[in-house]
Amino acid sequence: MNEFEFIHALREHSRTQKQSRRVIAGIGDDASVLTQLGDRDLLATTDLLLEGIDFYRDAIPPQLLGRKTLGVSLSDIAAMGGRPLWSLVSIGLPTAVWRDNFKEAFFQGYLALANQFGVTLIGGDVSQSKTEIVMDSIVLGEVASGAAVRRSGAQPGDQIFVTGTLGGAAAGLKLIQMGARLGKEGLVSLPSVSGREEKPDHEESADATIENVESKAIEQLLLRQLSPSPRVGWGIVLGEERLATAMIDISDGLSSDLRHLCDESGGGALIHASQIPANPDVATLCGRRALDPLALALHGGEDFELLFTVRPENEVRLPKRVDGVEVHQIGVITDQPGRIQIEEKSRIWDLKPGGFEHFK
Amino acid sequence: MNEFEFIHALREHSRTQKQSRRVIAGIGDDASVLTQLGDRDLLATTDLLLEGIDFYRDAIPPQLLGRKTLGVSLSDIAAMGGRPLWSLVSIGLPTAVWRDNFKEAFFQGYLALANQFGVTLIGGDVSQSKTEIVMDSIVLGEVASGAAVRRSGAQPGDQIFVTGTLGGAAAGLKLIQMGARLGKEGLVSLPSVSGREEKPDHEESADATIENVESKAIEQLLLRQLSPSPRVGWGIVLGEERLATAMIDISDGLSSDLRHLCDESGGGALIHASQIPANPDVATLCGRRALDPLALALHGGEDFELLFTVRPENEVRLPKRVDGVEVHQIGVITDQPGRIQIEEKSRIWDLKPGGFEHFK
Repeated sequence: MNEFEFIHALREHSRTQKQSRRVIAGIGDDASVLTQLGDRDLLATTDLLLEGIDFYRDAIPPQLLGRKTLGVSLSDIAAMGGRPLWSLVSIGLPTAVWRDNFKEAFFQGYLALANQFGVTLIGGDVSQSKTEIVMDSIVLGEVASGAAVRRSGAQPGDQIFVTGTLGGAAAGLKLIQMGARLGKEGLVSLPSVSGREEKPDHEESADATIENVESKAIEQLLLRQLSPSPRVGWGIVLGEERLATAMIDISDGLSSDLRHLCDESGGGALIHASQIPANPDVATLCGRRALDPLALALHGGEDFELLFTVRPENEVRLPKRVDGVEVHQIGVITDQPGRIQIEEKSRIWDLKPGGFEHFK
Repeated sequence: MNEFEFIHALREHSRTQKQSRRVIAGIGDDASVLTQLGDRDLLATTDLLLEGIDFYRDAIPPQLLGRKTLGVSLSDIAAMGGRPLWSLVSIGLPTAVWRDNFKEAFFQGYLALANQFGVTLIGGDVSQSKTEIVMDSIVLGEVASGAAVRRSGAQPGDQIFVTGTLGGAAAGLKLIQMGARLGKEGLVSLPSVSGREEKPDHEESADATIENVESKAIEQLLLRQLSPSPRVGWGIVLGEERLATAMIDISDGLSSDLRHLCDESGGGALIHASQIPANPDVATLCGRRALDPLALALHGGEDFELLFTVRPENEVRLPKRVDGVEVHQIGVITDQPGRIQIEEKSRIWDLKPGGFEHFK
């Protein structure tokens, strides 16, 4: 039983509970949706981030870890079409980490992102841990009554959109695993990524230019992994304008998350490879670093972009961009439940989910 | 800087945030209090439970760990005078633990307690962890607008009450550390606790009686530690009837938590040692097991009883018991800020906090 199967079983079980008061959406969506007494529904989400699984202590500066901890949960609220309001955070730190400047830097990054979106940190818990850093991020938000965008609302013919670009965060993770690190000033160090040999002087200059372009691309990809930007503005627009029929954030990977959306909606999907907005920095590096832009865009996780569906007649109402971020139409919902097809160069094949699973 | 100082600093810092919309109580109380749009306020709390710090895997059956995970957060909602409604839980499990029956037993215990109090599990997160079991428990609740019982509302002359008995959970922890374990049927095994030598037959029967009484007491104390009962009913009564002026749950220990309450209220306290309801099972064992009932009642954590203050004229309105649990008056709030005194056998001394701190 992997975690998706277990969560499904738990969800079925929790439906048999005596009470399910005022619960519009419980287990099985990006966030839970609860009826408040006024004309807004309450949203709640939680995300666990564990050292060695979700991040490496030596690869992410504490400030960015603080930012990412909040960011992943803001993304869940955005994926419901809601507005984030309040947050809580639980932190477990080994004593040695407690004693250095980790927590101050962590909260500097956390609170800066909170301020950016008008979110107030209202509580949390602090505990000692034995060896590993542990974070649990909780965000509460609101949405107009009945306007929460579920995973389950897509219908055949709805067009499939995605914000921003895909594959960058997964490429960043690969680069980290190859040894790339952000430097103090945001520069990258490339201990084992660069395999260059000594060259004669006249070849140094051309190499330096390539190196410079590559460094910039690597830095951008590391930041995609370490410092994701939740699409809070898009979430609010898509929810308030009731534009999206279904939505999910891309945390596990497009192939996995599109499958979650289709499963919940009882439909299938046809997507066009050429329309998937692959991250341009991955393309810059793909030759020399053996990165496959399409594979990463399809299966790479942690981009925290929004994947959503729109009725064809509403496409014209979609803004061109929100907070400077564009959307791309990548395909259409079909009436073939469970079947996700991808069209690539006049060939159509069935897409298997290849996203992240904890317990295979 | 210990965790209390850090939380205080963070609280001061978060007050400088751009927004603090609809936040009645943020960092620094048992739960956060938020304005909803109707006539109820929203409560939110989170508690992190880490293996090797908050529990030992070999000492707590998964079912009781599930129960305790929810219970500690229900206790926080009770300490605000509120009614729990919804819960989320984040779980990190090593792969080997994921593959055995841990999660099924965990949720059996968790959901049984949720059902008991009409709480609906609405979400959470599941992650792989490297080596240790990690839980973060989140509970949302409600209270009538303006009726949340803060730590800060006590005034000189208010009487100090505590639900149930104190010191049992800390005694249970000591017994676990001495090697005592719950058996399959709730019986205890005493690998290193019992130091008896072989005795002649005629002494066996008296010993067996003592052993039996002790076993029962040890079992009760282990359950106080491993399976706390949050005082949800008392919390609702004290909040809805507006009986308590200030309240906190006893998680760190009476001496620590009374200090938190006094610090927030800007007062002091005088408590009477003879009126503190020490756990009776600790008294049963105190001779042979070197347990000090008063010291454990004063400084032992994790009883999850409610400590609250009541105006003298409202004492008559207090119910005798709620859900079978009594309360005891243990002292009075004084006008000496920061000073907590204890009267013991006609002697009055200043009480130093001796409760649990993660980072000393």
